[in-house]
This record gives sequence, structure tokens and C-alpha cells, in this order.
Amino acid sequence: MPQRPGTRFTATELLERLAGLHPDLLILGPADLQGRHPGEHAENFAGGVMAQPGSTAAAAALVSWCAAHDVAIVPQGGLTGLVGGNVSHAGEVILSSSRLNRIVAIHPEEMTVVVEAGVPLETLQQAIDAHGLTTGIDLGSRGSATIGGMVSTNAGGILAFRNGVMRHQVLGLEAVLPSGAVFSDLTRVVKVSAGPDLKHLFIGGEGAFGFVTKVVLKLEPQRPARATAFLGVADAAAALAVIRHFRDLPSVTLEGAEMMWPRYIRDGAALKGFDLSWLEDGAAALLIEVSAETVEAATAALEEGLETLWEPVGLKGGVIAQSLDQARKFWDIREDSGFYYPSIPHAPSFDISVPPTHLDAYVAGLDARLKAIDPSYAAYVYGHVADGNLHLTLIKPGPLPMDELLAVENAIYTGIVEAGGSFSAEHGVGTEKRHAYETFASPEKQALARTIKQAIDPKGLFNPGKVPF
Amino acid sequence: MPQRPGTRFTATELLERLAGLHPDLLILGPADLQGRHPGEHAENFAGGVMAQPGSTAAAAALVSWCAAHDVAIVPQGGLTGLVGGNVSHAGEVILSSSRLNRIVAIHPEEMTVVVEAGVPLETLQQAIDAHGLTTGIDLGSRGSATIGGMVSTNAGGILAFRNGVMRHQVLGLEAVLPSGAVFSDLTRVVKVSAGPDLKHLFIGGEGAFGFVTKVVLKLEPQRPARATAFLGVADAAAALAVIRHFRDLPSVTLEGAEMMWPRYIRDGAALKGFDLSWLEDGAAALLIEVSAETVEAATAALEEGLETLWEPVGLKGGVIAQSLDQARKFWDIREDSGFYYPSIPHAPSFDISVPPTHLDAYVAGLDARLKAIDPSYAAYVYGHVADGNLHLTLIKPGPLPMDELLAVENAIYTGIVEAGGSFSAEHGVGTEKRHAYETFASPEKQALARTIKQAIDPKGLFNPGKVPF
Repeated sequence: MPQRPGTRFTATELLERLAGLHPDLLILGPADLQGRHPGEHAENFAGGVMAQPGSTAAAAALVSWCAAHDVAIVPQGGLTGLVGGNVSHAGEVILSSSRLNRIVAIHPEEMTVVVEAGVPLETLQQAIDAHGLTTGIDLGSRGSATIGGMVSTNAGGILAFRNGVMRHQVLGLEAVLPSGAVFSDLTRVVKVSAGPDLKHLFIGGEGAFGFVTKVVLKLEPQRPARATAFLGVADAAAALAVIRHFRDLPSVTLEGAEMMWPRYIRDGAALKGFDLSWLEDGAAALLIEVSAETVEAATAALEEGLETLWEPVGLKGGVIAQSLDQARKFWDIREDSGFYYPSIPHAPSFDISVPPTHLDAYVAGLDARLKAIDPSYAAYVYGHVADGNLHLTLIKPGPLPMDELLAVENAIYTGIVEAGGSFSAEHGVGTEKRHAYETFASPEKQALARTIKQAIDPKGLFNPGKVPF
Repeated sequence: MPQRPGTRFTATELLERLAGLHPDLLILGPADLQGRHPGEHAENFAGGVMAQPGSTAAAAALVSWCAAHDVAIVPQGGLTGLVGGNVSHAGEVILSSSRLNRIVAIHPEEMTVVVEAGVPLETLQQAIDAHGLTTGIDLGSRGSATIGGMVSTNAGGILAFRNGVMRHQVLGLEAVLPSGAVFSDLTRVVKVSAGPDLKHLFIGGEGAFGFVTKVVLKLEPQRPARATAFLGVADAAAALAVIRHFRDLPSVTLEGAEMMWPRYIRDGAALKGFDLSWLEDGAAALLIEVSAETVEAATAALEEGLETLWEPVGLKGGVIAQSLDQARKFWDIREDSGFYYPSIPHAPSFDISVPPTHLDAYVAGLDARLKAIDPSYAAYVYGHVADGNLHLTLIKPGPLPMDELLAVENAIYTGIVEAGGSFSAEHGVGTEKRHAYETFASPEKQALARTIKQAIDPKGLFNPGKVPF
């Protein structure tokens, strides 16, 4: 078996050689990393050597040294990635953004912010809160997920149907290229038509094209006056009709539209003792949140919506939260989506998107395809229905044997790209979806990605073994 | 002087060789093009040979033939580009999207549309109007500008501060690569994190990386109940305070915020006999349009805004349109921005962006820098103040002698990229901003662009001589 690219040196050799490389570069070794939490993957720290630059210049010095000495680099942010994109191996240098943690500038008048890559989302949210602003993107892992990591995986969340994903909020960025050169495009305006917009290579690039050091983000106004409802729907088509109704209302802003298919809402509610008496048996649940000028206006819009939509959409029940506390309980059913893990350890889960109008056919077909593999198979299905992003969990303890996993992947991913969806909606490719990428991404897309990777990182030293190139 | 790349054949030779290449490929020669309007640049049709594919397969056949025979290709859409990006030369083949003009599918429930690249913006707008939808991007040249051309130049317009630019509305696209291979990424969802998102190379790529054949766009709900006002403001800082006020109102949507600096509003109004008695002498004018649930509610929001903002912002006057007809007259002052050309023929004009909070310092500095070149110099300044995009016109007949033009370019562009702005906000680079690109784009960005161009189009056959590579 050939040696992994970029693993010429042992950890001890790397520690010796990197010492004193740059005054603003901290180097940690295996002893320093022991006892630190490696995040979502046990192997994230397996490389054993971590460089923590405190400035872009220090990061560039590290990368230049690695380029000159053929040493591979694994960029890391908040270690919340779910697909193994941060896994490191002996001989590789982990390049961490943890000391690039300054909020450089907030510009409330123009609703932009400049941050270093290692700033956690929640820290940024708190800093801009006083200006009545939000990032327009929120995630369950907000406490540790960093802006740089969210850029590298093109993070999504519940507001993507309106604000888009991370890519749509990024105005500019700075990154160290595999050569060690610094690509600086700290644009602070949305309108740029000045040659190819190459920053998009780094957004969703999963560290394959460079190490993001700074980011300029567009911000959104806060809309705190809200109301929340649970509606019963027969299918995604009904949910889309509800969504369109609220999106068309000029004085109301739709803040969330999360659908839970029948098995998910039933089991989740049972576990939490959440009252489902408002929901017709066998119906799915749609969580709707809207904002308006006042809480009363938001609530009135939901009440009117329920009445207007009841007959034409065929709603299967509805309940409006009567307090913030009740609204939080509604959201908890959706956000505590790991409720099933204690009883189904390591249940295999997936994160896909399909065009919203295909959702019903997709879910019905999926059920049939899973049952064709094993008649006992069933899945929890829930997600961001307005943008077609579903999370799917097989109701069976994992990990599955490889042949069974491949059969399930086939059942879940086949046809999805051709329909206009994605086999990875918001988690990335990393190591865990390499097989899916090789099987389901179009050959032309894969070929073009390889061509560009080869041109930018000819030795393949940036995050090797992740997105296949 | 070396021959231009990709110009081995004469027009006659090309016509002979391309005849019958593909059943769905029309080939026009110099005789056919004579008398057709070449759009914004007289030299657009100078190549003399135009291929009009009726399908992606026909376009791929043409491109494959050109790749095999080292023939250069100039992609063309609606020919409304302002920077010479469509200029062709003898020996090059023009590849026109004019017969790729089908609206493939409208999906009103999910608010998306799939169109061929040659569909004009206005045609698309009319088709989606019945579904209560808009593209979220509008341009003066809507009648002829094509979706493919708008993708290739990353078109902007008046709603970029809220909806972003073309890049933010594109969900997927299909393009023929310089090799003749078809890159098909007709994603119809916003959430994709499945490897590098390479479609962004073609958005704003000005035809350097391939020929766009199909586009999937995200659509926005229409908001027809509107009100329009003209406000007097001392400077851009005041305008930004007004903008933030209306963006923060939950039940109102800001639909436009266009600022005209004093000289522009004074001369424009004088020419059109537009009453400026509401505006304090020497103040700038801010055109504000908002939508709400009803016209009355929109008008009330403007009235309240005027009252609330008058003192703290120091407004210099204000008038609210009392009818649709009056609102149209307000907009005409801004949109008929060529009013000065009859008296100042070929006045040199520029399209830049700076972070909105830099606008006042930029405009003051610009005036000083222009006067340092020639004390008689002055400029019309107006534009999309919410996103920092200014249009600037030198009040002097053009074209300027080259040394003078370079001095003016220096005065306008120097420092703009470092401040986080752009020397080309929404028009592209083309042939006319090559010098600006070479002078003001960062060397690292230019180097990375060359690396990628070389990897995708090693012979330099796609749109040669435009964005420099």
C-alpha cells in the first residue's frame, strides 16, 4: 500500500522542524492534544500535530513550509462537521483556526461584519445582537461551529429557503492557498462583476483549495415579534401550499417551515409527552413560525391562515403556541432530532435535498426501495420542507455492514441528482460521503473538480482523502 | 504582431466547414449579419460568422469542432453588455444563444424556473407574472438582456441590497466547456454541499470558461402594493439611516433606495421640468420605494418614516408620490440616467462599488482627485446607495485621449479594492476594463484566475482578449 501523500515526517520530526517557524504560530503535539475533545470524529486529532496561527501571516508561513516540504495539511474549525472532513492521520499537520478568533469590524449602518475564521457563530450572534442584526443563518451547533468551518462546508439551516445558505451571506474572504500565497478578497459589497469570483471555490470547498482566515458577511435585520404554530398536513404538497400562503403575505415574514413525517412526530412526541390530540391520526406535522410588527399581528396572521387554508389545503389539525415557552416546546420536537439515538444507537442517517415538489414522490419511493432491501426497514423523515432538505434516519442500530449500507445509500441517493437535488444538502462530502460522491456526482462535475484541484494543489496536500479528486 | 489565437480560418472557410455539422445548428455568415443591429458595440459582429444552436447538443458539437480545429469562440446573448465583452474578430466564431429560447419549466409551488440561456428577462417576467412571482432582479435592458448573459456578467440592479445579484438567484446551470463536454448541474434546490460548487465559475465568468445553455433560477413573491417618496438628504450617511429604518420595519419591504447626488438631481430635474421645490438647495435626493399589505399601509409607513426621521437624520425635504403616475415620474428621473448624453456626447462613465459607509468619503475624495487632474472636471454621481454601487459620469464629452482617460480611471479606481469595493460593480470587465483589471485587481486573484483559465481552456479559445488571463 502506497504511503499517504504528505506524510514523510513523524510527529516528533514535525514538532522539531515547526518550532520557531513564526512568532505568531503555536504548535501543539500529541501530549498537548491528549484529553482535548476531538469533536464529532474520534480520529480528528489522529495526526497528533496541530498548528494554531494567530494571524494570516503565521498561517501562510506554516502553509509555505508544508508546501516546500511536501507535508499534508488538514484544516480544522469548530470540529462540528458530521461527515469526517476533519479527520487527520499521522504525518499530517492539523491547521486550526482556534486562535483566529477576533471580530474585526461590525458595520451596522451597512449591515456587514468582518470576522476571523475561528469565531464561533454564537459569539458573532451575541456581538451583533446589540445592533438589531442577525447572521441570517442558524444551526444547532452554534456554540462551537466556526464561521470558517461554516464557509468551508457551505452551511445551511432553517432559513435557507429565504436567505440562502452560507454562500449567499459571504461577501468576501481571505484564504491561504496551498502554495502559501494569500488570496485576499475582503470585498464588503454584494455587487462585484470584476472578473471570475474565485472566492466561491473556498465556500463549500471543504479545505481542499486553501485555508480560510477571514470572512466578510452580510447581515439581516432581527425580527423578534413572532408566532409559532403546528399544523397537520397530509403531505409535502399541502405543506408547500401553506408555505406559499405565508410567503405571499406582505406584512408577515416566514421564519421557519419544518416538516416532520408521521412516524417522526408520533415517536418524538410520545417520548417527550407532547400532546398530539390536535393532529389527525397518520398526518404529518408542519411547524410554522412567522414574524410581524407585533406578536399579536403575527398570531393573527397564523389564525387567519389556518382558517383560510383549512378547506382548500385540507389541513389535518392545527395549534398555535400561546406563549414563548410553548413555542420553545414546539421547536424542541424538531430540533432535538436525536431523540431516537438512545434506543437506536448509531442509527444510519442521511442529509439530502430534492426539489420540494418531488418530496412526496421521493418519500413514497424511498419507503418502497427500503422495504425492497428488507421488509422491516423504515425511516424517520423530517426537515426543511421549503427548500427540499430532508434528514433521514434508518430505524435500525448501526453501523450497518458495508454491503447493507451501500444498498441503503443506493435506495436513498439514486436519481436524486438527476431530479435536481443533492446527496449532501448541508453536511458536505468529507470522508463519509466519498463513495456517494464518486457514485452519484456527474462524471463531468467530478472531472472539472479534479482539473481545478490539480491546478491549485498539484501535490494534493490540502485535506487529502476527503472530497475525492 | 502575432496572429490572434484561434483565427486560422477565413469566414468563407468557416462557413464551408461548419455547414451540416449538426442538424440543430444554424450558421450565419457576413451577408446574413449585415443590417442586423450589433447591440451596444459596433464590433460585436466583426467576426462575421455566427453559430445559433437550437439545443445543448448542437452547441456542444460546435464547441467540439472548434476545440479540435483551434478556432476561437465568442459567446453572445442579448448584446446589451456595456464593456465590450461580446466584441468579435475575423476568424472567430460567434456562439449565440438566440435560439435557446424556451422556458423549460415553471414550478410555482417551489418558486423556481428552468430556462434556456437565450430567454430575455422580460419574456421570463411575463411568463411568471401569472403565478405572482418575479425574478427578484430587474434591469433597464430587460427587453433584450438574456438570462444567460445576465448569468455571465453576474447582473445586478436595484434589488441587490436585499436579494443579492444574479449569482444569488441561480440554483443550477448547464454549460458547454471549452473541451466540448457538457457540465450539467441543473440543481433546483438552494442547499447543496456536495463537493466544490463549480457553477460559480460560469456566473460572472464572461464566457471565459464555457457557454451557458440552461439556467435554474430561484424566484421571489411579487409585492405590488407600493408607495414611493423622494427625500432630501445631506449625504450618503443620512441615506443609510433612512434605509436601515425601513429595512427594520417588519411589515414593510424596502423595494428601492436610489440616491442622486446634487448635480445629477438638479440637472436631471431641470431638463425634465420636474419640480424640486421640496428639496433644500444643494441637498442630494433619495428615492425610496416600499411595499406593504396595501398601498395605504405603504404610504402610511413613508409618512411615519418622514416624521420619525426628519429631526434625527436631518432630512432636507420630502415628497410622497400621490399616484402611480407620479411615482413613475420619480423613477424616470433615476432610470433615464442618459439624459446628459445629448449635451455631453460619449461622456465617459464608470460603474463602481464601495462599502456604503465609505460613500461620502469616496465622493468627496473623488471630487478632489478629479479637480487635481483638471479644475474644470466634475461628475454626475448616482446609484444604488444601499449596496454601495455608484454610477459616475464625467461631465465632459468623450472619448477622452488615452492619457487623460487613464488619469481619470486612476482617480476613480485607486484604493477602491483595498476599501472592500469593486472597480466594476455590475457591468463586467470585457475589453473596456482590461486595463483596470490588470491595474487594480489583486495580483494573487489575477494569478489564481490565470491558473484556472489555463486548466479549463488551455488553448485560450473561449472569448479571447476579454478578462485578461
